[in-house]
Amino acid sequence: MIDVIIIGGGIAGLETACTLHTQGIESLILEKEKEIGGKLTQWDSLFPSNRNAKELVETYKDEIQKHTITVYVNTKVIAIKKQNDGTFEIFTSREIVFKAKTIVIASGYSIFNAERKEEYGYAIYPNVITSADLEHMFATKKELKAPSGRTLERVAFIHCVGSRDEKVGNHYCSRLCCVTGVKQAIKIRQMLPETHVFNFYMDLRMYGLGFEEMYREAQEKHGVQFIRGRVSEIAQTNEGRLQLKAEDTLAARPVRMQVDMVVLLVGMEAPECNSILGKSCNIQYNAAQFIVPQDIHYSSGITSAEGVFVSGTSIAPLSVFDTINHARSTALAVSNFLMPIQNE
Amino acid sequence: MIDVIIIGGGIAGLETACTLHTQGIESLILEKEKEIGGKLTQWDSLFPSNRNAKELVETYKDEIQKHTITVYVNTKVIAIKKQNDGTFEIFTSREIVFKAKTIVIASGYSIFNAERKEEYGYAIYPNVITSADLEHMFATKKELKAPSGRTLERVAFIHCVGSRDEKVGNHYCSRLCCVTGVKQAIKIRQMLPETHVFNFYMDLRMYGLGFEEMYREAQEKHGVQFIRGRVSEIAQTNEGRLQLKAEDTLAARPVRMQVDMVVLLVGMEAPECNSILGKSCNIQYNAAQFIVPQDIHYSSGITSAEGVFVSGTSIAPLSVFDTINHARSTALAVSNFLMPIQNE
Repeated sequence: MIDVIIIGGGIAGLETACTLHTQGIESLILEKEKEIGGKLTQWDSLFPSNRNAKELVETYKDEIQKHTITVYVNTKVIAIKKQNDGTFEIFTSREIVFKAKTIVIASGYSIFNAERKEEYGYAIYPNVITSADLEHMFATKKELKAPSGRTLERVAFIHCVGSRDEKVGNHYCSRLCCVTGVKQAIKIRQMLPETHVFNFYMDLRMYGLGFEEMYREAQEKHGVQFIRGRVSEIAQTNEGRLQLKAEDTLAARPVRMQVDMVVLLVGMEAPECNSILGKSCNIQYNAAQFIVPQDIHYSSGITSAEGVFVSGTSIAPLSVFDTINHARSTALAVSNFLMPIQNE
Repeated sequence: MIDVIIIGGGIAGLETACTLHTQGIESLILEKEKEIGGKLTQWDSLFPSNRNAKELVETYKDEIQKHTITVYVNTKVIAIKKQNDGTFEIFTSREIVFKAKTIVIASGYSIFNAERKEEYGYAIYPNVITSADLEHMFATKKELKAPSGRTLERVAFIHCVGSRDEKVGNHYCSRLCCVTGVKQAIKIRQMLPETHVFNFYMDLRMYGLGFEEMYREAQEKHGVQFIRGRVSEIAQTNEGRLQLKAEDTLAARPVRMQVDMVVLLVGMEAPECNSILGKSCNIQYNAAQFIVPQDIHYSSGITSAEGVFVSGTSIAPLSVFDTINHARSTALAVSNFLMPIQNE
């Protein structure tokens, strides 16, 4: 019987395991992918400091190794069954059945599938990419070009793709696309100073520490152009450029623009497994399939099912700052559940 | 010699003390006001759940009492002196000199003084109030009227007062005024269904869990009207109403409007003491006088001075959710500093 099984080996799961270790509680991590680190393994840099994302992943890998925390990779959780004694059986894609006293759901997030916004032509036009694709290009490519090989004279970013959008059923704000869009726009201007960069937005939600300052710099120092308006359609011209139709809501006039590459700032969605986990251990989750915490202020790591906890973006889109602090908070809640007397 | 002295008895300081207690570390809280609980003691309700703010304060008061954590109220820290052995002497408005191994700065925030935006007429026209004043009215008054006694036919909220504003020297976004404005607008519509409510904004930064949904409800269910534009001036008419001049940037035309009460959504500033504390123990703080953490992702509770930690809004405007999780994270960092061997 393991004290804690953590479902997910992204930053939230790793931090939860490390903090539990400092509390004298051993845990086991189940990760569905072939390596730990979650989405950050494919990220280039973190805002607002431009820190290398891999560096943070490596910090966690070192900690996990140092504390000899067991990780099963390539292990997908299929179902959880609560036992009469209050403990859990966890069924996975492996043949082993894991048994644990408590469970922490750290399932992370999925990236919105941009093909669902057909009008933007993702997976139809080669030069329409997502912010995740661009991040991957930053991390792996030396030279920045459109996927078709075009030189980038003009690039457009489209904010809120798959977020705040009734049509795709996501009413919520993904919270981090705005700052990602500003960060990436600056990076393009730094790599290719001749390239014109346009960001089409609704509200620029630069709420976090250093975000607003970055937005200001993007405009004043880097010459990124911000246009308030939703892009309604993208089509490819005969010359292989991309033609955008939008409305500039501040100038109150329609805009048509040709660019060489479009970057769709895709939102964060709850992963499919949340509803499966939710149903199999009777946890409350919302319409968007994020896990609902017992109380968003004081007990944001505790779910509606006794012995089941939640860490990181399983509750909502969160930044790395938020995720790490939330994971630490969740680990303390688990510790308090397993050792309530020692803690008094 | 005390292990930890916590400067500030708001939510951040209280949560830090409670978490330290679970780690077997005793702390002492110094609070400059006559009671603990910080700004929340004057708040009515917390978003997005509309939870009573006093309930959360009472939860903390109970915890502090249960754990017999010592609190000195009416005690203002004047200076900190680092000793050669790495410990600290803390000089306060009392005659006692406190000695501690570590310090946690949980100094909270100040509310922007709206008189500095003279064009809005705060403290000149009685019916121009701040969001903090309105929150206090919600918490204490049974019937909602303008301070002059006027019936509220029309109310205007002005977002970003003292935030994102070069003229007052605050470039940063205060992050919580938007959601406060939406929450308060809904509350007025609920209390006074005949009253028209207008929110003048630049970007609606409804980034957090449940915020966007609240914004949607404000428009669709509660009929709050949102106008994108900065208000340039407020003047009082002979009839005692307030005349607003603004630009509707979406309609690209000037707006003049008469209302019975104006609510200024005032931002959060770093308290004066941050620079005093910063200087006296050599901690890095930014232009806005928020304390700069060692690293915003992994070590956001650690300052540039060994043995000095930071918790909550001393680093930046943060929500209650953020503050509580950050305070827990900081307490773990303190624990790890004081007991690095036991933690391995």
